[in-house]
This record gives sequence, structure tokens and C-alpha cells, in this order.
Amino acid sequence: MNYLELGKQALSSALAEQTEKYRQYCTEGLNLNLSRGKPCPEQLDLSLPMLEITAWKDKDGTDCRNYGGTYGLDRMRRFWSEVTGLPFENIIVGGNSSLNMMFDTVSRFMLFGTANSEKPWCREEKLKFLCPAPGYDRHFRVTQQFGFELVTVPMTAEGPDMNVVEELVKDPAVKGIWCVPKYSNPTGITYSDEVVRRMARMKTAAPDFVVMWDNAYAVHDFVEEGDHLLDIFAEAKQCGTEDRIFYFSSTSKITFPGAGVAMMAASDRNLKYIAPVISAQTIGPDKLNQLRHLLFLPDVAALKEQMKRHAALIAPRFEILLSALSRELAGTGIASWTEPNGGYFVSLDVLPGCAKRVWELCRDAGVVLTEAGATFPYGVDPQDTNLRLAPTFCSPEDLGTAAEILCCAVKLAALEKLLER
Amino acid sequence: MNYLELGKQALSSALAEQTEKYRQYCTEGLNLNLSRGKPCPEQLDLSLPMLEITAWKDKDGTDCRNYGGTYGLDRMRRFWSEVTGLPFENIIVGGNSSLNMMFDTVSRFMLFGTANSEKPWCREEKLKFLCPAPGYDRHFRVTQQFGFELVTVPMTAEGPDMNVVEELVKDPAVKGIWCVPKYSNPTGITYSDEVVRRMARMKTAAPDFVVMWDNAYAVHDFVEEGDHLLDIFAEAKQCGTEDRIFYFSSTSKITFPGAGVAMMAASDRNLKYIAPVISAQTIGPDKLNQLRHLLFLPDVAALKEQMKRHAALIAPRFEILLSALSRELAGTGIASWTEPNGGYFVSLDVLPGCAKRVWELCRDAGVVLTEAGATFPYGVDPQDTNLRLAPTFCSPEDLGTAAEILCCAVKLAALEKLLER
Repeated sequence: MNYLELGKQALSSALAEQTEKYRQYCTEGLNLNLSRGKPCPEQLDLSLPMLEITAWKDKDGTDCRNYGGTYGLDRMRRFWSEVTGLPFENIIVGGNSSLNMMFDTVSRFMLFGTANSEKPWCREEKLKFLCPAPGYDRHFRVTQQFGFELVTVPMTAEGPDMNVVEELVKDPAVKGIWCVPKYSNPTGITYSDEVVRRMARMKTAAPDFVVMWDNAYAVHDFVEEGDHLLDIFAEAKQCGTEDRIFYFSSTSKITFPGAGVAMMAASDRNLKYIAPVISAQTIGPDKLNQLRHLLFLPDVAALKEQMKRHAALIAPRFEILLSALSRELAGTGIASWTEPNGGYFVSLDVLPGCAKRVWELCRDAGVVLTEAGATFPYGVDPQDTNLRLAPTFCSPEDLGTAAEILCCAVKLAALEKLLER
Repeated sequence: MNYLELGKQALSSALAEQTEKYRQYCTEGLNLNLSRGKPCPEQLDLSLPMLEITAWKDKDGTDCRNYGGTYGLDRMRRFWSEVTGLPFENIIVGGNSSLNMMFDTVSRFMLFGTANSEKPWCREEKLKFLCPAPGYDRHFRVTQQFGFELVTVPMTAEGPDMNVVEELVKDPAVKGIWCVPKYSNPTGITYSDEVVRRMARMKTAAPDFVVMWDNAYAVHDFVEEGDHLLDIFAEAKQCGTEDRIFYFSSTSKITFPGAGVAMMAASDRNLKYIAPVISAQTIGPDKLNQLRHLLFLPDVAALKEQMKRHAALIAPRFEILLSALSRELAGTGIASWTEPNGGYFVSLDVLPGCAKRVWELCRDAGVVLTEAGATFPYGVDPQDTNLRLAPTFCSPEDLGTAAEILCCAVKLAALEKLLER
């Protein structure tokens, strides 16, 4: 039943039907949550053996309890080198939060610039940052905090619209772009080879333009053959633009979100440039936690096994959500959504002008969604159409109920809108 | 034997004697280190039971493995409140490094100012920071990195010379002062009540002047009755200057230097002011490590017991060093040193113009000291007189040998200098 083709009469009776259904849900006193891109407790249990590890001496004799090792344990840097394919020398291991490393990186740009800056960014008249949207609210917020004008770039199924990006970077005030290149938050798509290549190759007016490459879901497939992402660092090296790449990842969704190990990578020149700043900032990250990780996940094979165990818990949840969307909304003409092969999110587009209303309806029926608009700069979705769905944290039963209510709310909001005409 | 009263003849024969002794040491191929303010392995072993803790759920049900808790676990904030006497609400718990929290704090001042700033500090024409010296090189380096002019303030036995400080803060470019108020690094002295009160009370030209109060050795006594430090936050509140206080501490030298739990405290106004910045920076510190700490050191009594166990390992080492200094150098007129009741350092003053030479002589005999000058801004000791001695990391035997060589080097350098006249 395509809602867009219905007459007023049919719309009204559909509205009555959905309203009745919705009222029913509201009486159930539910408290469900699809807002959080958090692993569920069962996923966290997968890493409990790591907490049994009491070792404190690294293979090379390093006492991981004591001070030292500004860039983390060499073995942990090597681990990240194997996982990401990036050169060991370009990797810095940090604390428990890659977001923190990204914030610190932008903060350093503000106060010291990059190796290619004429001056610290805080001395520039005007600063702009590209925000492919729908995207990750916490990325946008970092640059907003530092006073950048956030410039929205449309997302396509292949990544940010590179025609738009290539135009925008002709403005020297545009200093960088946020990217979640694999299983993008929230659309779940992976950047195509062409997008990666164009990102590496494009001419930017700013000599110190940066690509903030947050590969948070590098190994987070939940299908057998996950998406393939081109190595942007290697591509950039080929065109001599590797100074533009700032690469991040973490084990937050491999082991523990609150107690994982984050990493960043940058070019030789940039690492050399920031070394004095970093060594003024810290005596080094928590090496004991790194050692725990290394013993729990000694190699890429062990990591892959761990990710399969995650997938076994995540895939059924995505399946529940996606089959509800398909069963209830396919062919209605009032919604479209992504079907990712990994990551933590499904992106749902409802009729323009309806996302906030869907969010409200869900809230009032006891289903919390990520705030409508959150996936856009300044929290404002110009079309009011996008909702980010996070199915991992709920139990399968709760998720089923939440998905039904969500679909009902999507219909209800659409019917209200269509009847307004 | 007071070297300053000796004639040329006696000096020459003393020089010959010490040279012979020194040559002897040089043949022994030693490799000893008094440079590092690091706990020794036996101290680290005291906290090994903490590594056995596998708990992940806090008493209130918080899953410490997952995201959340920007300011750390409430129980950990309460722990710090009990240890420091500061109000719970004013405490933020961080990651493994208080130095990192201090760096981030100054970085925030640069980009956002304090709650009382007219503009971000990076927009000021000129920035100066007071550095009581001898002091902690890593403090000085933070402000140097951000481009402050470092202004040396003489240290007295009661803390920074407050007559000098009160003069200097009449300059509005002077934005703050570094303090290690208890068992100061490196002199080991504790600020007197009067110094603390004057620090809280003094009028500063800059409305956003800050006192960076690094109480790193808050509980690190190694005598029965440790030094008493006045609560600067309470003092400042009484005179309405609490916005000036930024307070730091950590468990680095209570549990593990590389994997402890750091804290900072600031006034209500400042915390409110920085809240959006911090919540843009991170989703929160490692709560599992906080839980480990809370279970290992559940209360102040347990903490005190732990510090007694540290003292039992540290006190004998200080004793070895101090008795060597006393035996070899007392009454010679060529050296003076501090005898602290806690902390990690002894500060040794040699004849003016001799510290670098002592450092070299020690190095060539296989004893590494903290670089001469390191305790002064820009690494330059204008008198070339101060050396920081860190006796905790060495074994007692090695320390005894190192102390002997050090005393020999102090004599040798003094004799060379006196014979130059």
C-alpha cells in the first residue's frame, strides 16, 4: 500500500487504524531505547576474560605499571599497524577514547596548526569544517566547540558527495572534513574506492586541509564478507597528500567502550611536528590496559574471532529491526532506510517534515530514539527527515517491540502530514 | 673540614685525593640512576592485588565497561573528596595522568579562557606564568609549549617567595603560577599556612589569574607525622577567590604511575564554564580502572595503610642518601640539601657554577642525575647550583654507591672551582 497514492478517505481510515494501534502501545508503560550506539551487556561479556589478565611485564621487559612510553607500547602500535595496514612508525596509541584523541588533534590545530600551516588556526579570520550529513553528532560538536562554521555535505550511498566537497574546498577557510569511512555513522555505508581516491587527490585551497578519518568500525562486519575500504593513507602517499590524513580508531567496540585502547596515525611530518606537544601533554597512556588487550587479542586472527562473536550477537538484532521496517514500511512510499553490512546504525529517512514528529510519538510511547536532527550540523536536519536507529543495546524482545512502535509512529506521522495537504 | 677555609696547598691535596677516588669509581662500569622520580618495582608490587580485581559493576549498578560518566564514577569523586577534603561537586576524575589534565586545563585557558576571562588567552598580546624554582620541569614545559614567558620566583623553605609573587601579579600579563604545595618537587618542602593564605588572598591584576595547585604528594609522607598543608580551596572561598584555584592530584604514586587515576577540582563557576568543553572532548574516563582502585583502596584508612607500606620502602632510601650527604658533605661549606618528610626528591645545592660539572662527573662515572638546570624555567639555573636527587627507584645497595659517587663529584667540582680563584 503506497500511502502517497491514497485518497483522503483511505488516508483517514488508515490514520484511525494506526492511532488505535498507537494508543494501545502507549498504555503498555514501555521504556525502550534505540538511541545508544552501545554494545549490549552480552557483547561486553565477550571480553570478560581480559579482566582476568594480571600480567604487568611486556615481552621486552617493559614494566607496564610504571611511567613511560609516550606513544604507548610498541607491541600495541604494531597491533594497530596490522589491523589498519598503516605503517608502525605513523601510529600513536592513546588512552581509552579516540574521540578524545580527535578533540586533542583539533585543539592542537587551533593552537599550533599542522606541519603545513602558516599560523595556528585560532589566528585565522574564519574557520569552516565540512560535515557529511547525516553524520556523527559528536564529530560535529568538536568543531562547533572550537568555533568552526559547520558546512553540511550531502551523503550518498558511496560516501560524501565529492562533487560538492571538491567545490567547497576551493574556499581557503575550509580546513577539513569529518569522515566515518566504513559503516558510516549513521548510514552504515562504506566509502567507495573512488570517493577515497578523490578525497586523497583533490586540490584544497587551504595548504593545511585535514581529513579526520575516523575508522571506528574498521573490523566491525556482521556479514561473512564485510565491506572493503581502500587504504586512504597509501592513496594519499601516492599523490603526496599524506600530511592531510589524520586517522583514528579504537577497540571501544571490540573490547570495552569505556576501557578500550584508542589510536591515531598521521604522516611523518605531522608526527614530528606534534611530538613536542604530545610529550608536553602526557608521560604516556595506560600501558597495563594495552598489555591486557595484547594478551587477550594477540593477533589479527584472534581479533577476527572476537568480531565474529560480536557479529553473532549484533546480526540478529539488525535482522529484527530491518525485517520490521521491511514488513511494515516497504512499498509505503513514506520511508527508506539503509541495510548495512556492519557498524552500529541503521539510518531511516521518513517523509520530509516528519522526523521530529516520529521522535515525539516514539518518546510518548516509551521508545527513546536519538534526537531528530542530531545527525546534522547544529542538530538541525533541514528536511526534518532523518532518524538514527541503534539496535545493538536492546534485548531482541525489546527491540522487536520498539521496532513495531517505531513503524507505527512513522505511519502515523506520515498520515498526519499527508492529510494536512 | 670547611673547604672554603682551605689554602691552595690543602685544596690541591684534597683534589688529588678525590681525583684518585673518582678514577676508581670510573673503572667500575656502573650504570646507576638517581634521575627518575619513579616508584621502585617493590613499591609497584604493593598494588599487584589490584590487578586481580575482575569486577565491572559498580555498587549503584553502573556497568563500568560501557560508555558514560564524563566526570568519572561518583564513588571515585567521593574518594578524592575524602582524600583532599574538597567538595564532591567540585571534583572531576580523569584518566591516568594528572599532567594531562593540567595540560588540557591550560589548553582550555588558551582557547576559551576561564569563567572570568575577557577573552581566550591566545588572544592576549603577552602571556607570563610564574614558576617557583627550583620546581617541576614538566610544569614549566606545559606553559612554555603554549608560548608563555616563564618568570622565575625564588623558592623558600616555606614555599614561593610571596613578596616577589605579590609584586609580580600586579602585571596583568601574569596569568598564573605553578605550585607543588606539599613535598614540593624538588625541594620537598611544604607551603606554610601563611604562604597558602597569601596565595588565596593576594590581589592580582589579571581577573583570570590561576593557581595551578598540583597536590601530587598529598598523602605521601614517610615519617609518622607528615607535613600539614592548609586547604587552599577553603581559604580561597573565604576571600571569594575560589575561581582562581585549579587543583590536581592522582594515584600515580599510590598505585601505578602509568595506570593510576587522576583528578582535578575547580570552582562551581569554572566547572560550569568548562562542562561543555569537557563533554565535547570525551565520553568519559576508564571506569574499570576506577572501580579497581575503589575496591583496592575502599577508604582513607586503606589508603593510609598503603602509604605506610610505601613509606617502609622509601624512607630507608632517603635515609641512605641523606646520611651519605651528611657524612661526606656536612661542614664542608660546599653543599646544602633538603631533608623532606615525604615526596620523592631531595634538592641539593652545590657551589655556584658547579651543578653542571657535578652532573657531568656523575655521568662519566655511571651515575645519571636529572639534568642540571632542569628545575629552572627553560632548563637554565642562573646560579648553576641546583641538582634534583630522586632516591626511590634505585635498590638500596645501588643507591649507597651512587650517593658516594655523587658526594665525591660534589667535592671534586668544588675543589676545581676553588682552585680556579
